[in-house]
Amino acid sequence: MKSDQYLLLPGPTPIPHRVLRAMDRPMINHRGPEFKSIFEEVIDGVKKIYRTKEYVQIYPSSGSGGMEAAVANFISPGDKVLSISAGVFGDRFAQIASRFGAQVEKMDFTWGTAVDPQKVKDRIEQDKNGEIKAVLITHNETSTGAFNDIKNVRKAMGDHPALFIVDAVSGLATIDLRMDEWNLDVAVSCSQKAFMVPPGLSFMAFNEKALKVQQQNRNHKFYWDVALGLQYMEKGQTPFTPPVALYFGLQEALRMMLEEGLDNILVRHANYRDMVRTSIKAMGLELFTADDVASSAVTAVRVPEEIGANRIRKCMLDEFNIVLAGGQQRLDNQIFRLGHLGYIKELDLLAVIAALEITLSQLGHSLEMGSGVKKAQERILAKKGLS
Amino acid sequence: MKSDQYLLLPGPTPIPHRVLRAMDRPMINHRGPEFKSIFEEVIDGVKKIYRTKEYVQIYPSSGSGGMEAAVANFISPGDKVLSISAGVFGDRFAQIASRFGAQVEKMDFTWGTAVDPQKVKDRIEQDKNGEIKAVLITHNETSTGAFNDIKNVRKAMGDHPALFIVDAVSGLATIDLRMDEWNLDVAVSCSQKAFMVPPGLSFMAFNEKALKVQQQNRNHKFYWDVALGLQYMEKGQTPFTPPVALYFGLQEALRMMLEEGLDNILVRHANYRDMVRTSIKAMGLELFTADDVASSAVTAVRVPEEIGANRIRKCMLDEFNIVLAGGQQRLDNQIFRLGHLGYIKELDLLAVIAALEITLSQLGHSLEMGSGVKKAQERILAKKGLS
Repeated sequence: MKSDQYLLLPGPTPIPHRVLRAMDRPMINHRGPEFKSIFEEVIDGVKKIYRTKEYVQIYPSSGSGGMEAAVANFISPGDKVLSISAGVFGDRFAQIASRFGAQVEKMDFTWGTAVDPQKVKDRIEQDKNGEIKAVLITHNETSTGAFNDIKNVRKAMGDHPALFIVDAVSGLATIDLRMDEWNLDVAVSCSQKAFMVPPGLSFMAFNEKALKVQQQNRNHKFYWDVALGLQYMEKGQTPFTPPVALYFGLQEALRMMLEEGLDNILVRHANYRDMVRTSIKAMGLELFTADDVASSAVTAVRVPEEIGANRIRKCMLDEFNIVLAGGQQRLDNQIFRLGHLGYIKELDLLAVIAALEITLSQLGHSLEMGSGVKKAQERILAKKGLS
Repeated sequence: MKSDQYLLLPGPTPIPHRVLRAMDRPMINHRGPEFKSIFEEVIDGVKKIYRTKEYVQIYPSSGSGGMEAAVANFISPGDKVLSISAGVFGDRFAQIASRFGAQVEKMDFTWGTAVDPQKVKDRIEQDKNGEIKAVLITHNETSTGAFNDIKNVRKAMGDHPALFIVDAVSGLATIDLRMDEWNLDVAVSCSQKAFMVPPGLSFMAFNEKALKVQQQNRNHKFYWDVALGLQYMEKGQTPFTPPVALYFGLQEALRMMLEEGLDNILVRHANYRDMVRTSIKAMGLELFTADDVASSAVTAVRVPEEIGANRIRKCMLDEFNIVLAGGQQRLDNQIFRLGHLGYIKELDLLAVIAALEITLSQLGHSLEMGSGVKKAQERILAKKGLS
């Protein structure tokens, strides 16, 4: 019997049974009181996850739609934008800004490393006349498994007036992010990552300062227009037909998240990261990122050329029905990525680690069966204070 | 986040998503054509699992109800019955026969061992006058994890006219059973074991010889009456309101079973048994049964008195949400039982073995983390021909 699929992508992530059941309901009127009540609960819940008391909009879109909404609302054609990147998704943010007519200045860091706040500080301090209107940055670089120190990059900007716009698509609720406390102006995320809901909803949080900039914005927009969203929000509605079933799911998922508590969720994800990293090391494979920048959402593993990352992925899928992500662009076949965010459980990871050992052995990589599992088990024991 | 429950009982077993979804349908008329079509498909499917072309009845009852139906239909008050037992469920069959007025002669074997066909042969040969009307036996003794060699016990009866009545409740579709080829007269099973359906349905297969005996039966019965069942079956109905949602589930589960193929199902269960047993040995625990009688459905593990089986069970439940069965009656706290039948997967077992190692270590049992997992992994590799 083929096992249920183990979906270890950095999104979409597995959907809890509670969420599946919540979505399995008849359609309702999205202009009626029942939807209004769900909508208000969901907006309130998403704000709690962002740790913000300011604004949140929900779009019927993927995460990239949320990134486009941030650009379309808060960057005007001709604006100078500093776009910081250390991977595929940093590059994407720069590309979207370019397409919308911004003058994009890229600041690149080596893939697999994190953004250096000092370099941002140096560049911002040169901008005496305040030409830079926005700084774009990625919270968690899904393509490499390195996260950025958003708090200190924001601090590095001092009182420069540029908007600080964060792609927190895969980072939100896996790695700490404090919208209000850290004074972030805009931050984007979406449903199919730590929120444990199928793809189709993106979230955009923004503050009063960003809203003022939005009101002067000169970009063409309708679908993404924050003004329209805020106007409908007063009635407990969305401007366009919302994906109602996903709202049912998000309502239940947020209840699960708030029952667990955001702090506990972050600790849980950090524990997954540590379990996976310690076991990968024991298997004799190389991690793509250093420990101090390692993401709690996804771990990228460098694979010796003679094995090839894509053979490992194929074997894990064919033999165990375990889905791993590949390397993107220039990292294709060099790394695989193991997503450990959302509705993933310790026991799932133990099984996946055991299966990975079997796969590596089948593909000719010499290792002791159980060696990685043992390290992960010892971490669980240590966590219980009984190592 | 608490993991989903790992239900490793020897029934009820986990329910596949496909079966859950199949049950999640509006109620239908159990006297209408839609039910008739489901009923006929289900009867046909259950016959395939029994490897029989003869009769099958489905009762709205637990497995013990099926055992009672076998006694009520095929044993008359005053009948002499040879009831063979090597555990709790063998004893139960004898008890039911006694309650229905049979003269029960018990033949007992040590718990944890299997029935010796030679002893049955010796006893049957003494019965020159054919006083014994029925022989009752357990296919898989769920309380100990030992299975009986049904084929050879049946052979040992030679051409003695007694009915051979088998409790195959947990054994059917986990350990080979061939109703027609082995000339079994009656065999009982139920939904919540290898059939991957919630409890509530029992199955009774019987042959023409048994039906003739049934027609002369003098026991009081109405609910269990085979005659009534056969009469309604002609119309594609059951005498009493059937648990319709369970029929929806059984229909889907049988489709899954027939897609997989009965022979593959048996191989899969034998593989689970071997994975579990090899890992248990590596952890330094003692198996309750010898290898040659070890059940493919459930493994009983003897636990040192200073640890206690019930502490292991509590710890596995509290810390990992893994449900193991305890020892019954005199085996309480001496053994735990790990069910590996139905919708269980290799990866689940790897995780459960890893969790059991952690638990044993927490409870002071000295073992190397990963040692049991390693043995299970090596079995998987060996199965792939790459050990």
